[in-house]
Amino acid sequence: MTPWSTTEIRVRYAETDRMGVAHHAAWLPWLELARTDLLRAAGHPYRDLEDSGAGLPVVEVRCRYRASAGYDDVVRVHCRVEHVGSRSVGFAYRIERDGMLLGEATTAHVCVDPQGTPRRLPEALRETLEALRAAADAQGAPGA
Amino acid sequence: MTPWSTTEIRVRYAETDRMGVAHHAAWLPWLELARTDLLRAAGHPYRDLEDSGAGLPVVEVRCRYRASAGYDDVVRVHCRVEHVGSRSVGFAYRIERDGMLLGEATTAHVCVDPQGTPRRLPEALRETLEALRAAADAQGAPGA
Amino acid sequence: MTPWSTTEIRVRYAETDRMGVAHHAAWLPWLELARTDLLRAAGHPYRDLEDSGAGLPVVEVRCRYRASAGYDDVVRVHCRVEHVGSRSVGFAYRIERDGMLLGEATTAHVCVDPQGTPRRLPEALRETLEALRAAADAQGAPGA
Amino acid sequence: MTPWSTTEIRVRYAETDRMGVAHHAAWLPWLELARTDLLRAAGHPYRDLEDSGAGLPVVEVRCRYRASAGYDDVVRVHCRVEHVGSRSVGFAYRIERDGMLLGEATTAHVCVDPQGTPRRLPEALRETLEALRAAADAQGAPGA
Repeated sequence: MTPWSTTEIRVRYAETDRMGVAHHAAWLPWLELARTDLLRAAGHPYRDLEDSGAGLPVVEVRCRYRASAGYDDVVRVHCRVEHVGSRSVGFAYRIERDGMLLGEATTAHVCVDPQGTPRRLPEALRETLEALRAAADAQGAPGA
Repeated sequence: MTPWSTTEIRVRYAETDRMGVAHHAAWLPWLELARTDLLRAAGHPYRDLEDSGAGLPVVEVRCRYRASAGYDDVVRVHCRVEHVGSRSVGFAYRIERDGMLLGEATTAHVCVDPQGTPRRLPEALRETLEALRAAADAQGAPGA
Repeated sequence: MTPWSTTEIRVRYAETDRMGVAHHAAWLPWLELARTDLLRAAGHPYRDLEDSGAGLPVVEVRCRYRASAGYDDVVRVHCRVEHVGSRSVGFAYRIERDGMLLGEATTAHVCVDPQGTPRRLPEALRETLEALRAAADAQGAPGA
Repeated sequence: MTPWSTTEIRVRYAETDRMGVAHHAAWLPWLELARTDLLRAAGHPYRDLEDSGAGLPVVEVRCRYRASAGYDDVVRVHCRVEHVGSRSVGFAYRIERDGMLLGEATTAHVCVDPQGTPRRLPEALRETLEALRAAADAQGAPGA
């Protein structure tokens, strides 16, 4: 089990703005792709989770933008599990290009049923997330 | 009943691209806003239609881009009903800025139930759409 | 000078996701609309700032999502200046629907020249932002 | 030289809408990815074209939606050159999932200089596009 996932994303023309670089809001779907890649690799595709009645909507986003990503650049988003609660999970992200740090982010999520009511994380998912968190804590930075 | 609706939209920074103008894909949600304004003014808010089991997904889009729309520009989208079938409806659009034509578009829609199966337009909706189409045919261009 | 601006935004169909509500990334352009409305009302349209060589790219976003916004809902985003530096500015936001708090956010910005190099805020802008900040501090919550 | 390019795109959560499938406007950036993949494979990365003063803005889009694409589905977009003029180019697209046709599209583009004035296609590009068009005409359907 790899504690940090890596997702490669080529910046789309439609994601750029008048400053000539990826608009800051375009980064949020990149984080989403990164955490779903992490979950998929750990055996829990997010589509299956949601279809089984355990959605993980975002309740908080924090994102630091240190450098911009240009059109057609290939950005790498590294993602790890940062904390796990009985009904919640948090992910941390590093966004890089050619080894240069472009930004860092965290997202927090609450587990909800199809009516949107908070519920406990499914047990198998919680165990996987806990293992990912422990492995990431042990490893430190991505690629370390 | 006004056969052509008019929707004012201020171009968002997030809608611009590296050419410095609204990305062509950003125009499609503008068309969507325009036809929902037309439907709302005619007494059929699209949310109510969809909630009552009559969705109108897009099955075809055609859009001509004649001039660009810049950041913070106020664009006016005029919309009319162009054709009505037993299970389908088509809208036509003119996109303008300060009286200058920026583009023209049409969209075609099929009425579907919540499972996505084609169904007849609700009768009250069909009658309204027919009346709008006839009134637009009689009037000609928006504002004419 | 009103220290809190208010921007009304009707949730677009294109902004919703498979959970049936506005996707969390769609909120960031709403914040952008809100701060540009605040700047415009204070006599500094953002387009003019950028065209005069003083861009304000986002360097940090924090957003708390407390409740969701549905399709066609009218959301009100209140925005104020929270801090002003020699080269930076921070805004705070409250997102509401029918008086209910949906979320809160802050954004931080650095002033840059057209090459993306940090620079001092134009003096007239800095004075306006300082006055807005002081007025918002004196007033407290929006509408208070 | 492959006359039909193939681009694989996994549908993003942020691209879905309240109907539970990819919003129709989300397809346009997919077409954009497809034609830039075709150009890149033919030795003309679009970023280089634009940086050298030959942009290819969209002047017309036509898109037929025959079936929807769900969250996390892997969609394949096939793209070919359909016509080439002295100042213009047109592409055709087929959008598929697991061999099933989801939709078809065409886009038309005019070559412009950095001021947005129409200009002739760069000669090397025009020759490549002509060769791609002829090869696609000879081949017929993608994969044929």
